[in-house]
Amino acid sequence: MRQHDLEFLFHPNSIALVGITTATTWHWTRTFLEGLTEIEFDRPLYLVNPKGGEIEGRKVYTSLKDVPGNIDYVIGLVNAHIAPKLVEECAEKGVRAIQFCTAGFSETGEEERIKLESELAEVARRKGIRIIGPNCMGIYCPQSRLSFSPAFPKESGPVGVISQSGGNSIYLVRQAALRGVRFSKVISYGNACDINENDLLEYLANDADTKIIALYIEGIKDGKRFRRALEEATKEKTVILLKGGTTEGGARAVAGHTAALAGSKATWDALCKQLGIISVSSIEEMIDVLVTLLFLPLLRGRNALLFGAGGGASVLIADEFESRGLEVPPIPPDIVAQIREFTPIAGNILRNPVDYSQAMTNTEGIIKTFDILSRWEGIDLMVIFVRTGQFTTSRISDTWVRNLLMSSFPIKQGFFPKPLAMVLEPSIMPEEAEAILTAIRGAIASELPVYYSFATAANAINLVLNHTERQSKKF
Amino acid sequence: MRQHDLEFLFHPNSIALVGITTATTWHWTRTFLEGLTEIEFDRPLYLVNPKGGEIEGRKVYTSLKDVPGNIDYVIGLVNAHIAPKLVEECAEKGVRAIQFCTAGFSETGEEERIKLESELAEVARRKGIRIIGPNCMGIYCPQSRLSFSPAFPKESGPVGVISQSGGNSIYLVRQAALRGVRFSKVISYGNACDINENDLLEYLANDADTKIIALYIEGIKDGKRFRRALEEATKEKTVILLKGGTTEGGARAVAGHTAALAGSKATWDALCKQLGIISVSSIEEMIDVLVTLLFLPLLRGRNALLFGAGGGASVLIADEFESRGLEVPPIPPDIVAQIREFTPIAGNILRNPVDYSQAMTNTEGIIKTFDILSRWEGIDLMVIFVRTGQFTTSRISDTWVRNLLMSSFPIKQGFFPKPLAMVLEPSIMPEEAEAILTAIRGAIASELPVYYSFATAANAINLVLNHTERQSKKF
Repeated sequence: MRQHDLEFLFHPNSIALVGITTATTWHWTRTFLEGLTEIEFDRPLYLVNPKGGEIEGRKVYTSLKDVPGNIDYVIGLVNAHIAPKLVEECAEKGVRAIQFCTAGFSETGEEERIKLESELAEVARRKGIRIIGPNCMGIYCPQSRLSFSPAFPKESGPVGVISQSGGNSIYLVRQAALRGVRFSKVISYGNACDINENDLLEYLANDADTKIIALYIEGIKDGKRFRRALEEATKEKTVILLKGGTTEGGARAVAGHTAALAGSKATWDALCKQLGIISVSSIEEMIDVLVTLLFLPLLRGRNALLFGAGGGASVLIADEFESRGLEVPPIPPDIVAQIREFTPIAGNILRNPVDYSQAMTNTEGIIKTFDILSRWEGIDLMVIFVRTGQFTTSRISDTWVRNLLMSSFPIKQGFFPKPLAMVLEPSIMPEEAEAILTAIRGAIASELPVYYSFATAANAINLVLNHTERQSKKF
Repeated sequence: MRQHDLEFLFHPNSIALVGITTATTWHWTRTFLEGLTEIEFDRPLYLVNPKGGEIEGRKVYTSLKDVPGNIDYVIGLVNAHIAPKLVEECAEKGVRAIQFCTAGFSETGEEERIKLESELAEVARRKGIRIIGPNCMGIYCPQSRLSFSPAFPKESGPVGVISQSGGNSIYLVRQAALRGVRFSKVISYGNACDINENDLLEYLANDADTKIIALYIEGIKDGKRFRRALEEATKEKTVILLKGGTTEGGARAVAGHTAALAGSKATWDALCKQLGIISVSSIEEMIDVLVTLLFLPLLRGRNALLFGAGGGASVLIADEFESRGLEVPPIPPDIVAQIREFTPIAGNILRNPVDYSQAMTNTEGIIKTFDILSRWEGIDLMVIFVRTGQFTTSRISDTWVRNLLMSSFPIKQGFFPKPLAMVLEPSIMPEEAEAILTAIRGAIASELPVYYSFATAANAINLVLNHTERQSKKF
């Protein structure tokens, strides 16, 4: 692969944060400093504000030209009105790219502000400087130690993200990171007055570090080019798309957010279908699909065995699974007989779902049962679940979580005969929240796919299965 | 209203827990003792186990006949095989009703066990003793201090519940209680060998303490009578129904759980439509509907104003609302102008949803903005939201939560010009979980309806609006 034109954006040799607030109390502009510090950005980093002074022991230069070294990349936090002037100063300093976090441009819908954005783009073009934004968070690239949030992981992963919204990109990275997902490059590109979704999609399609591309798009500037870029991207990578603004109210919000044109839902649905793109309708759904793609081995079929506690829960989760394209087949009598040998009949329903309520203190029994069930040819997937809220006391929840997970954590994906998934419902009950969180973290550390509910698990697994089936037909 | 035949079940003068385990380590049979202790059951309570001894300082009688006083009501925790014999002993002692928690009857699918259940029912009928269960948790009635879980609230409320599943009834009560919902009577009735869903529904339809009836039904024994009971119940009360076992796998789980026949989904949907019953497909959805019925004033229309932070969030939540039957209309220019007078343009999008991101530290501004917006004739509902995961650091989330909620908590439903709802997304990030939990609890203490996501809020509000519209057409 030849080096893409935008490759330099991801490897700046130096950065200046221009317009970072010098006020003594914490201010949102510090986010970028905190992000770069936390990810251990190891090249020169300069702070610039006309007021000068110091921020956390770092010198604040009063102007860009006072900065002693070269500057590759500027993060612009200045007022919208002086943004075009900053571009000119950057040109004099030899800056190659500016990411404008600054808002207050075309997204306001006000004529004067729309003009200001055009002016910004025009100056940049004239001076040969590339712009990301305005009204965006810019680049997170753990490999080259770029970040816009101190809450992002330091490790890299295979997921590339292009997001028109900064907030949605943060939400995606932080929530997905809790589930074990890691990223190659995440770009929040906002109003896209210069670098747009097409440039970035073409870049990620050719980026060797990116295996899966997740898109949050509010609107596009050039439909034909976008379609071509998607075709390119889907050739060798899995693409997931979340289209914001599919309703009238959503489309109005898009206009006020990044000033893009939203486009009809039908058009977008058709595009995804044609190109084999996984279409999702929320960030949560996007994360569930990412978790499935990354941590659940490719399933050979749709038959699932569900293992946990609770007769009533069993009924509802079987419904959740079967109403979302998966199957919960009955366990054959000879397998039931093997388990029944060491499992009491009352309170332990050996159907599918398996309700192991009263044997929960019997870790050895759970392990033996897992072992027998995992050798059953009739299933393609085993799902272990914990629903703490159904127990009469938190003491029972605790015991269950501990025993079930003691039995299942040693099982690493790949060492177990069947693909394994976990449904661990977070609890907001103070006395249980911690136990279930520990369980979630433990399962993720074992590289298991963790879902927060049966409905979301079944939905994501079904989406990925549909995608795989479509792809296999394609070739 | 004349006294219903089953009224006595909810007012036992004394209770015996028969078969409570005397083992020194905690055992699930203690749940009932803990439940009754926690809710301060204030009439005689006896423990019975052939081994005798003591449990937590209470004498354990070796047999029922040794108990010195009268016994009204027995909670049976004995082995299934001796259940019929316990009924006979109860008859000698003058017991009027037995709730059998004991499992291992028809739900096992084994012939011998099905026969055992018939025998149990037969002995009870002969001896004139009513049975709840077997394979159930029995009665929670805070007013008469009956409970089967120490985790249930002590206060009463207007919601009556009939649940074929014990676990699902516990899940419902515990999770709904966190949202401010309180209950009149909750009955987990299991295999229903004697008292069944029809008896209980007829009872709740005539119970003055119950205004809303929530049903979890796996299968019914007498379709015609059930329909009549539902017709009666829907006359003066709102009925919500969750039908378990609507898929093949779910129906198989029903057979293994309470041995009931599930019935087709189409039949149940048609029934709900005809009778004006709110049909839901999960316990979470049932809780969202309960919260809406109890804490959201009757809306006059479908226009919502959404207020919070995040441009990308704005787009997605507008989509979530509009794709679920609600409207997010644009704010008229004159109202925007009033707010703009004191609100900076950059980072604060005064459309609908309102993105107040950068003014989040300005509590006074938030209050003034609320005030202006609440007088806008074009909306029927205001929704305040917090999505903590979208911020770059937990510090921002904290500030937002604190400022937004400081501004909104003093607003009690009814004192504010418009119906108010809160969408507060629980966080599983350890550094934020506590702040958002505090916010949730604060909002609930202010008797506001709290939802955990925009999708679930819009869905429940839409279901209740549909129901109200149908009812108004009916009269």
